[in-house]
Amino acid sequence: MKQYKLYVGGNFAETSTPLEVINPYTQKTFATTFLAGEKELEYAIEKAIALRSELISMSSYERYEILMQIANEIKANRSYLAEVLCEESAKPIKYALIEIERAAQTFIIAAEETKRLPKEYISLDWTDAGKGKEGLVKHFPVGLVAGIAPFNFPLNLAVHKIAPAIATGCPIILKPASSTPLSTLELAKIIDKTNLPKGAVSILPMNRMIGNKLVTDGRFKLISFTGSPEVGWEMKKNAGKKRVVLELGGNAAVIVTPSANIDLAVQKSVVGGFAYSGQVCIHAQRFYVHESVFEMFCTVFMDATKKLKFGNPLEGSTDISSMIDEENAKRVELWIKEAVGKGAKVLLGGKRDGVNVEPTIITGSSKDMKVCAEEIFGPVVVLEKYEKIEEAVEFVNDSKFGLQAGIFSDVLSEIDFVFSRLEVGGIIVNDVPTFRVDHMPYGGVKDSGLGREGVKYAMLDMLEPKILVK
Amino acid sequence: MKQYKLYVGGNFAETSTPLEVINPYTQKTFATTFLAGEKELEYAIEKAIALRSELISMSSYERYEILMQIANEIKANRSYLAEVLCEESAKPIKYALIEIERAAQTFIIAAEETKRLPKEYISLDWTDAGKGKEGLVKHFPVGLVAGIAPFNFPLNLAVHKIAPAIATGCPIILKPASSTPLSTLELAKIIDKTNLPKGAVSILPMNRMIGNKLVTDGRFKLISFTGSPEVGWEMKKNAGKKRVVLELGGNAAVIVTPSANIDLAVQKSVVGGFAYSGQVCIHAQRFYVHESVFEMFCTVFMDATKKLKFGNPLEGSTDISSMIDEENAKRVELWIKEAVGKGAKVLLGGKRDGVNVEPTIITGSSKDMKVCAEEIFGPVVVLEKYEKIEEAVEFVNDSKFGLQAGIFSDVLSEIDFVFSRLEVGGIIVNDVPTFRVDHMPYGGVKDSGLGREGVKYAMLDMLEPKILVK
Amino acid sequence: MKQYKLYVGGNFAETSTPLEVINPYTQKTFATTFLAGEKELEYAIEKAIALRSELISMSSYERYEILMQIANEIKANRSYLAEVLCEESAKPIKYALIEIERAAQTFIIAAEETKRLPKEYISLDWTDAGKGKEGLVKHFPVGLVAGIAPFNFPLNLAVHKIAPAIATGCPIILKPASSTPLSTLELAKIIDKTNLPKGAVSILPMNRMIGNKLVTDGRFKLISFTGSPEVGWEMKKNAGKKRVVLELGGNAAVIVTPSANIDLAVQKSVVGGFAYSGQVCIHAQRFYVHESVFEMFCTVFMDATKKLKFGNPLEGSTDISSMIDEENAKRVELWIKEAVGKGAKVLLGGKRDGVNVEPTIITGSSKDMKVCAEEIFGPVVVLEKYEKIEEAVEFVNDSKFGLQAGIFSDVLSEIDFVFSRLEVGGIIVNDVPTFRVDHMPYGGVKDSGLGREGVKYAMLDMLEPKILVK
Amino acid sequence: MKQYKLYVGGNFAETSTPLEVINPYTQKTFATTFLAGEKELEYAIEKAIALRSELISMSSYERYEILMQIANEIKANRSYLAEVLCEESAKPIKYALIEIERAAQTFIIAAEETKRLPKEYISLDWTDAGKGKEGLVKHFPVGLVAGIAPFNFPLNLAVHKIAPAIATGCPIILKPASSTPLSTLELAKIIDKTNLPKGAVSILPMNRMIGNKLVTDGRFKLISFTGSPEVGWEMKKNAGKKRVVLELGGNAAVIVTPSANIDLAVQKSVVGGFAYSGQVCIHAQRFYVHESVFEMFCTVFMDATKKLKFGNPLEGSTDISSMIDEENAKRVELWIKEAVGKGAKVLLGGKRDGVNVEPTIITGSSKDMKVCAEEIFGPVVVLEKYEKIEEAVEFVNDSKFGLQAGIFSDVLSEIDFVFSRLEVGGIIVNDVPTFRVDHMPYGGVKDSGLGREGVKYAMLDMLEPKILVK
Repeated sequence: MKQYKLYVGGNFAETSTPLEVINPYTQKTFATTFLAGEKELEYAIEKAIALRSELISMSSYERYEILMQIANEIKANRSYLAEVLCEESAKPIKYALIEIERAAQTFIIAAEETKRLPKEYISLDWTDAGKGKEGLVKHFPVGLVAGIAPFNFPLNLAVHKIAPAIATGCPIILKPASSTPLSTLELAKIIDKTNLPKGAVSILPMNRMIGNKLVTDGRFKLISFTGSPEVGWEMKKNAGKKRVVLELGGNAAVIVTPSANIDLAVQKSVVGGFAYSGQVCIHAQRFYVHESVFEMFCTVFMDATKKLKFGNPLEGSTDISSMIDEENAKRVELWIKEAVGKGAKVLLGGKRDGVNVEPTIITGSSKDMKVCAEEIFGPVVVLEKYEKIEEAVEFVNDSKFGLQAGIFSDVLSEIDFVFSRLEVGGIIVNDVPTFRVDHMPYGGVKDSGLGREGVKYAMLDMLEPKILVK
Repeated sequence: MKQYKLYVGGNFAETSTPLEVINPYTQKTFATTFLAGEKELEYAIEKAIALRSELISMSSYERYEILMQIANEIKANRSYLAEVLCEESAKPIKYALIEIERAAQTFIIAAEETKRLPKEYISLDWTDAGKGKEGLVKHFPVGLVAGIAPFNFPLNLAVHKIAPAIATGCPIILKPASSTPLSTLELAKIIDKTNLPKGAVSILPMNRMIGNKLVTDGRFKLISFTGSPEVGWEMKKNAGKKRVVLELGGNAAVIVTPSANIDLAVQKSVVGGFAYSGQVCIHAQRFYVHESVFEMFCTVFMDATKKLKFGNPLEGSTDISSMIDEENAKRVELWIKEAVGKGAKVLLGGKRDGVNVEPTIITGSSKDMKVCAEEIFGPVVVLEKYEKIEEAVEFVNDSKFGLQAGIFSDVLSEIDFVFSRLEVGGIIVNDVPTFRVDHMPYGGVKDSGLGREGVKYAMLDMLEPKILVK
Repeated sequence: MKQYKLYVGGNFAETSTPLEVINPYTQKTFATTFLAGEKELEYAIEKAIALRSELISMSSYERYEILMQIANEIKANRSYLAEVLCEESAKPIKYALIEIERAAQTFIIAAEETKRLPKEYISLDWTDAGKGKEGLVKHFPVGLVAGIAPFNFPLNLAVHKIAPAIATGCPIILKPASSTPLSTLELAKIIDKTNLPKGAVSILPMNRMIGNKLVTDGRFKLISFTGSPEVGWEMKKNAGKKRVVLELGGNAAVIVTPSANIDLAVQKSVVGGFAYSGQVCIHAQRFYVHESVFEMFCTVFMDATKKLKFGNPLEGSTDISSMIDEENAKRVELWIKEAVGKGAKVLLGGKRDGVNVEPTIITGSSKDMKVCAEEIFGPVVVLEKYEKIEEAVEFVNDSKFGLQAGIFSDVLSEIDFVFSRLEVGGIIVNDVPTFRVDHMPYGGVKDSGLGREGVKYAMLDMLEPKILVK
Repeated sequence: MKQYKLYVGGNFAETSTPLEVINPYTQKTFATTFLAGEKELEYAIEKAIALRSELISMSSYERYEILMQIANEIKANRSYLAEVLCEESAKPIKYALIEIERAAQTFIIAAEETKRLPKEYISLDWTDAGKGKEGLVKHFPVGLVAGIAPFNFPLNLAVHKIAPAIATGCPIILKPASSTPLSTLELAKIIDKTNLPKGAVSILPMNRMIGNKLVTDGRFKLISFTGSPEVGWEMKKNAGKKRVVLELGGNAAVIVTPSANIDLAVQKSVVGGFAYSGQVCIHAQRFYVHESVFEMFCTVFMDATKKLKFGNPLEGSTDISSMIDEENAKRVELWIKEAVGKGAKVLLGGKRDGVNVEPTIITGSSKDMKVCAEEIFGPVVVLEKYEKIEEAVEFVNDSKFGLQAGIFSDVLSEIDFVFSRLEVGGIIVNDVPTFRVDHMPYGGVKDSGLGREGVKYAMLDMLEPKILVK
């Protein structure tokens, strides 16, 4: 059985606490690694802090070379890395491969952006007081970054913290999810081969108690967390003086208008609704479909959903596989039952078998049901009718979350209207809210988060401006 | 009778060549001024060049104060200035007032932009060769500017050269149209009261022979011309080493699609087609209307056009008045006759009475007729049908000009399509091509011009970047 | 005696809790106003929130007009406003006048920036996944803002929160310092005359208990605090999900190098060290002078300091007047005594008389003394020698604070060195750290704060980006 | 003997006019290629124009992949390419290798910038007229580009036209110098292997008569010329309606101040003065050295120059080799003689042997001598004293050229002074004017050119902005 060492302050190390990694589909342990303890964390912190001046003084070219080397190595090992990711997460291999490609792309973007760190050159003579004076604004690394990544995109969401950290000259200690630590530990091996000073990146699976130090220790200058809303907002309270970036979840909605291309809408919606069993931050959970096309959309959507192939995630033809663990599968089942109990109707699916949940389509829901109100993080969608676009917007906004939303429409005034009114971080026209490319500003409003990621935007949070007035 | 002196190198002066200014509506001389000779021009050039270092060293605050003072004075004298403009140009007073307001706005924008001159601060360490080096890019005034303004917006189109010149620290010698020199000479009085160094702005009506020196004299570093295509392109050839900006005309088109709001389209089109008798660079000359709404659009458009009130431009209720001179009126009449001779049909108007031409709507035109192919610069529009949007785009593009175009549509894919395909400088959605606000980038492609105006963009042409590498 | 009403949700109102405002110089109450209670605060919050859609839909022109009107009114009433400010704060009238001018300037900058809200238009086709897609990023108001302003720049530091709020379309509830609420209440009268929707700005003096709701109430989306470090960092903990901007204090340092122009250095340093009795966030508190020029600098500095004229703040010739209250004067006296007790030497001043403290120059200090380590917020400076520039940088950095620093030098390599090494938000070359113009990015690192103000930068914190992908 | 085909509209082709390529060092023909005739040029133009819509619709990803593939291929073949370049130009192999690396870097920059084409998203509601309207500015390829490259950087100066053209979606026909066409024809082979549509790039050596069509033919929308001032400015006259970018030469100056690091100054100056026998646009030709360090600088400079090793350019130890042809060597000899005849003194070198000219240092020159006034484009420098920095600036500016200048100084006020006063495109602090990295804005003022190159800046000239108002 493969064993992975931790990446602690530039060393690959074992600890006294082993961690077994289970393949959710087979429910078998297929690899082991370790949990970092207080000692390892402390070592990593100290090594990281000692690198400050070395990291600051790297040229953009040196950072570029390192980041591009990592990107190229990821590409060169894409099949292997995708398999590791697939096994630890049960993410179907075709989606795992996309994630690997995106992780490489995220490093490429960071490589390019490190050459383009924000710099300002401004005149200060807008009043007599500044006569003859000018300002130069340069951005310096904020200091040690704590990154916490979730299980659902175990590599690319970690990379969205690691790559900007390297690009800005910040050291980072990254805690992957305990269920899916392997793809980031593979990344550690790639990083270790570059010229990046040892200790600039540490990858440390930790239990929650140890991991909490990432939040509370004042030596971290930024905590960047991707995960569940409850955990995230609690961190903000305990973060002391450090900056906090939260990329949390939501119950993203799709509006299907009369001018929608229904085939396109369905094709995208099946992916947005059921890819990786809905365990996606921008999973398309709520569908508001205009009454004039509701029946048609329902029919075509159900047909397309029925064709999804369940199976071993390692097989290329598999569309959908097991959920991350049985606890979550049970929770999803319970929420479906709650909805049905309150009057909702299951149009398709709805059953659980161990860690597997069928792709499920519900209608007749109400906003107080968990399948609507909470982040389901499972293969469940609700489909409801609307009459007027104002009403659809109200439905979408009537939620504590606000990550992204999709709208299928070819009507300019309608799109202008939803752009100004929807309370979300992003609106995707003629695509599902699940759409994301790695250089776009990405993040939620309301309970869905604080701040934006998307390489350049994540880098801004890792930089401190300093002005020289002369 | 009022007499206006020229503004020569900071002095108000008379010359030996008087110039009578005629009110096109009454056809009576109502004021006199002068034509500058070689001597005056030479004096203005020398005064301007001597100011170089004084102008460069002004703070942005000093420039701001001057530009804002001018804007405020224009506003304070808006009625008076509008009347002067109205009398020299026969522009209906309601449009003259708008032009005065816009001229003030153009100065306000320049005041704000002078504080925001482009500056860059860039890292140069993208390769080893630049290790440790950075670049600071600052923009310096290019030097003496020659501005040539047309009769149709005698104040604001001159201001689009004068205000950026002041904002960038370039001295400027402006030649107004000989038929409409007065509003700029009024502006000279306002400028003269500010702290702008005397000689930084000269306003010199000139005959074409003298004026040609603006093009050929090497001491001018930029010639910025707004006027007819023939004259403009000829200037480019003779301009020597200087920069050339050309804001020329066109035969702007409007596309009216099935999803158009017809009432809005007509309301805007009547203004775009007939305001100031079509003597507007972005006059809406060609209308391509989808066959499904053609009849309706025709009917409503003709009805609205019939309601236009012809009269004395000084009266607030006047919509349309005389053309700038009889020569132009005759030319327009001739072009209409040519069109009719080749088979076109006049739906409305078509007659000339001295310097006045009726608002004229033509259909059944072909692209070789002058009313289609050339810039009519008169109150004439052609209305034609189209079947498919691709065809409408072809119609619009089948022209040597490419200034702006309008489209009335609420269909996103249609708008995306025309944005990528129309060969023009600007596309105005749900408005006529005649739309312009003074800070937007404005200018044409193909024979319609070279470069962009719109304060910030005009300023760029008056600036020379200089990099400091350290 | 003048009585000021509060500005609550668009109404001028009295409450049941009167507040006497004392002139620190005369120690007499010269005006009264009120403390807002829970009821007033609740009313203001509700009025503010109800304005959301009205504020969002204002055009930039409407916001511009309002902000410029306020700026112009402030200028028109500069003498009167300066006197009010002078009386409530004992800030010498010559400095009070500067603050009034700056407050007007801050509104002008906001007026200009509201037309330039950040907008991005980006291509998303960097990978196949984004083929044909583009992104439009627009910024929307984040929601209700809580502003807390200090006594030392009672008007302009409040304006640095109010003007950006108006410019971004955020309603704001501002709590002025209880000792100096009047200049902002005068501002309220000016704001009330504009077209700004009533309730968009409320000015509410509050006791700390009531004021705490600004921190804890979830309806506020941003708390922007200027004040003391202790209070500020405590707020961050209790702020819940809202954003937090902290503009705190420091113990700013000045480096005087051998190439310094000593006369210039002293002239600036006397102002930086003693203006408004050092009650300035970027008060120049610590001076590190190269040993080769130490004696000369000392001598000239003491001579210049001796010439400062103490007196009634309302008199134009007064350089220095009373501190804000006796409590603070006593604290400063205590800190001086602590330093002397630990071995420091008082070169000049050092005495307290009631609320008045003499301009005080200390040498022989050590970094553990409060006059070095803490923010003195009084007319006290320490002067120390250094040998090498590296040492000077170490002295400056050896502090928990990091706001701004000044350096007097004409040596490029020295300036490059300090720019890369000083751990501060801003470095001022050939001027004191006290330098600030209102559009420059301003703020501290380490314990001196979180985030940046400076209109455009403050506005960013009040805006939420939203991307439209199409 | 190697034979190179032309790259015509996507085909490798021969023509009826062979062209022999001579190795300047051996004076032997070592390869042959062809001159394109009218027929080939016409074919290339037609193929290029036919690609318009295909090129516009390429995604940034597709362009990125092509550009990166070219960069990687160049790197992979660096030794081979450097040898070709070395043989055709007699550029010493160590400099040839640098040029190859830079050419790869230029493609990398273009690859990154194609993803960052300028786009603007602006509010238009600054007045009532624009209420509710916004503008989107997107840049479209201007059309067919004509590029003319010189012999001295035969590859990288061609790449500075080709790479931006590919990045913007413009087809380009490039005319290399007839003496050095091979490195670009090697590049053609690399380009041909990519997915770039065939015909988007053509590489056509031409005689001047045929080549003139690049200037006069209206189907070219931009002529981008790097070469001699006389030829360049003549082109501007004949260019018709197309845009013109001129990167011409100069007589670049270096100022050596008392605070200069003399060793560094000499080390850089030897390269700036004699690398590639001074056949460099930004060759350091004129040295103004402060009188206090003049003697020392002279001595060290002469010593260092004497150490330059003349030899076969293919040998790694060769510092200096033959000039491009005997005609130029004779011209340089003549200019030296003219200077001596007018009273200048040759401190070192001065002799010609066939195509070889010794590194030559002259002093006692006057500004009317050709070695000062004209672009020498040979291994000759003049060294003169100055007393005050103002005088040095005057010396530098007293020239018809203005490309770049260098200054060795550690004094901030001196650097600020020269930055504001020197009439050049770039000022290099503590390095020679010869410094250039490929992403920095680069170009001259006065007779040295029109416009800027440096990938992003060159791209701007190949783009036409189009605004969508909605």
